[in-house]
Amino acid sequence: MTINIKTEEHIMLIEVDRPKKYNAMTREMYSQMAQAYYKLDQDDHYRVGVVYANGPHFTSGLELTDWSDVFTGGVGFPLAPKNEIDPFYMMSDVRCRKPIIFAVQGYCFTWGVETMLNADIRVAASDTRFGMLEVRRGFFPCGGATLRLPKEMGRANAMRYLLTGDEWTAEEAYRTGLVQYVTAPGKQLEKALELARRVATAAPLGVRNILKNSRTAELQGEKAARQDIFQDVARIMKSEDMKEGLLSFIERRAAVFQGK
Amino acid sequence: MTINIKTEEHIMLIEVDRPKKYNAMTREMYSQMAQAYYKLDQDDHYRVGVVYANGPHFTSGLELTDWSDVFTGGVGFPLAPKNEIDPFYMMSDVRCRKPIIFAVQGYCFTWGVETMLNADIRVAASDTRFGMLEVRRGFFPCGGATLRLPKEMGRANAMRYLLTGDEWTAEEAYRTGLVQYVTAPGKQLEKALELARRVATAAPLGVRNILKNSRTAELQGEKAARQDIFQDVARIMKSEDMKEGLLSFIERRAAVFQGK
Amino acid sequence: MTINIKTEEHIMLIEVDRPKKYNAMTREMYSQMAQAYYKLDQDDHYRVGVVYANGPHFTSGLELTDWSDVFTGGVGFPLAPKNEIDPFYMMSDVRCRKPIIFAVQGYCFTWGVETMLNADIRVAASDTRFGMLEVRRGFFPCGGATLRLPKEMGRANAMRYLLTGDEWTAEEAYRTGLVQYVTAPGKQLEKALELARRVATAAPLGVRNILKNSRTAELQGEKAARQDIFQDVARIMKSEDMKEGLLSFIERRAAVFQGK
Repeated sequence: MTINIKTEEHIMLIEVDRPKKYNAMTREMYSQMAQAYYKLDQDDHYRVGVVYANGPHFTSGLELTDWSDVFTGGVGFPLAPKNEIDPFYMMSDVRCRKPIIFAVQGYCFTWGVETMLNADIRVAASDTRFGMLEVRRGFFPCGGATLRLPKEMGRANAMRYLLTGDEWTAEEAYRTGLVQYVTAPGKQLEKALELARRVATAAPLGVRNILKNSRTAELQGEKAARQDIFQDVARIMKSEDMKEGLLSFIERRAAVFQGK
Repeated sequence: MTINIKTEEHIMLIEVDRPKKYNAMTREMYSQMAQAYYKLDQDDHYRVGVVYANGPHFTSGLELTDWSDVFTGGVGFPLAPKNEIDPFYMMSDVRCRKPIIFAVQGYCFTWGVETMLNADIRVAASDTRFGMLEVRRGFFPCGGATLRLPKEMGRANAMRYLLTGDEWTAEEAYRTGLVQYVTAPGKQLEKALELARRVATAAPLGVRNILKNSRTAELQGEKAARQDIFQDVARIMKSEDMKEGLLSFIERRAAVFQGK
Repeated sequence: MTINIKTEEHIMLIEVDRPKKYNAMTREMYSQMAQAYYKLDQDDHYRVGVVYANGPHFTSGLELTDWSDVFTGGVGFPLAPKNEIDPFYMMSDVRCRKPIIFAVQGYCFTWGVETMLNADIRVAASDTRFGMLEVRRGFFPCGGATLRLPKEMGRANAMRYLLTGDEWTAEEAYRTGLVQYVTAPGKQLEKALELARRVATAAPLGVRNILKNSRTAELQGEKAARQDIFQDVARIMKSEDMKEGLLSFIERRAAVFQGK
């Protein structure tokens, strides 16, 4: 296995594990990652996922020889929709309904950046070197960077890197909103887990509704997002967790939520 | 009254005044605020509004007992559209056509953040503590934060706070574009008024057209916003204020605009 | 001529040259600039454009007397679509398909800001004074600032300047994502050229596809941008430049691309 799934309470740890090859992504790795996203989405024991990588580098990019068929084929990533969710969010509007947190370090090239763009919270070690190198090799990014990097770090900030293939630093990623924390090298997973624990102890239905509603706003516009929100809130007001929330408030203690 | 309206020349001051209860928002307060927005919109003596709050805190949030009916009802905020404009901008596309400036301090929780997101310019005292606490109480924000916080501070920056319920600082709000100025504690209203005076002495028709056109761009896209703009400019070129603008330029003095 | 075209290898230098009048833009200058954009778009010798201005200031704004007809006319900029591309990107969806880099200094008012907003990468000298002064003269910006400044520097950051007519600094432009570099005064063109050389040596088809796809995403949404991307990549995988890209990688040397 090149993608390992581990569990800490309600957190799913998704470990990228091909360090000898700088975590270059094979097609098999892609499938395993897509299956992990599907499992996170479906199994309600899990409330949040953390993606991280073993070794000094998050990834040097794709294992290109493994992928040339895919790119010349013209139809995109090879996905099994019944038990996989595309981590690039390029094959459909299906997205994991649970939050995903990324922790990156060292080289974080091409697919590393593009799957990170779909994460909800991001942590980078200070030694991270981000890069979309495609234009220096003859082609261009097709895993989402053209759509989402401009949104996430500002259009001209994104173009400055996409159009040149130049690398950027963790500090620059923080300045432009791409990552939320820069840690000492080696401490990125620790910080990501700290955030994941906060998400995991928050009300699971509330968390899922935030993702759902904010994605509706992003993809379909404000009007669509306004339409459902009061009915979604009304439903959640009748949940067990809402009662626990109020009770814990009165009793001045931390709430213990069940996702019901 | 828990919302007081005061006037300084062409500026409407909208004062939140329930400091003994940390300005927790009752339904009555909501209605009074909605009426103030309507008045600001309709009465052309006013060119800009400034919202601020008495006491050490802007607000601790909603007076929850007063609102549970509303949230379980599933239809949103109780609005009287004939003489009120919803300060959350959640009940329709109707928005105040005059700019609104917010000055916040201390706790600025839930509705404080969500109404501030609809303001056009924002000032925070350095002691401000922003927070969307809903997921720690069993539910999720339904006053606009899911739609607008990602737009205003970056998607992942917003998710980092929305999905955990963690607080953030004035400095972080400044870094991420949520507020334009951080002042010493107690100086936030002074700074907001300084900005309001600049808006109030600018050409009122120009100011209103900026708001109108930029909102069209935001809600309906660039094409829609390009369509009307040259006709709107042509109309304003024939205004009294345009003549005054050119005359004052030639006479090397500040223009005195009438909004005509 | 008030707009001069110069060539450095694959870079088109577009020089604004009316320094005695602080580069105030006449209608003739507008046409010459629109023709330069068209030439850059059509002539595939050129891979990137750099716009800069002679003298201590980028521009003091429009030569207003020359433009009053246009603004009262209500139909926008006087464009000859057969051999011109509107640098304001206000007259249609037509945009230059090659990247444009701006280098600005001193006064950079009204049209300077608005054409810069359409550039893909931007450099400002530290002495740059940005300003949208329209509301202090009786009208409002109609060259794109209402649509694009909120997107590029954050909505409330943009409103703080648009609604007051106040100036902002190069430092503030950098902080808010409007420019990517602040240089010492006089060094802005050098930095822009350094970036342009990086773009010019990148794969031209890749560069063009990044612009194309990211604009589709921006103007038509994510779904539209996802639809064509894999076919566009498949086409580029068969290009001469893709072969050169892989060969140069194996031979551990910089690729030399032909745009084929």
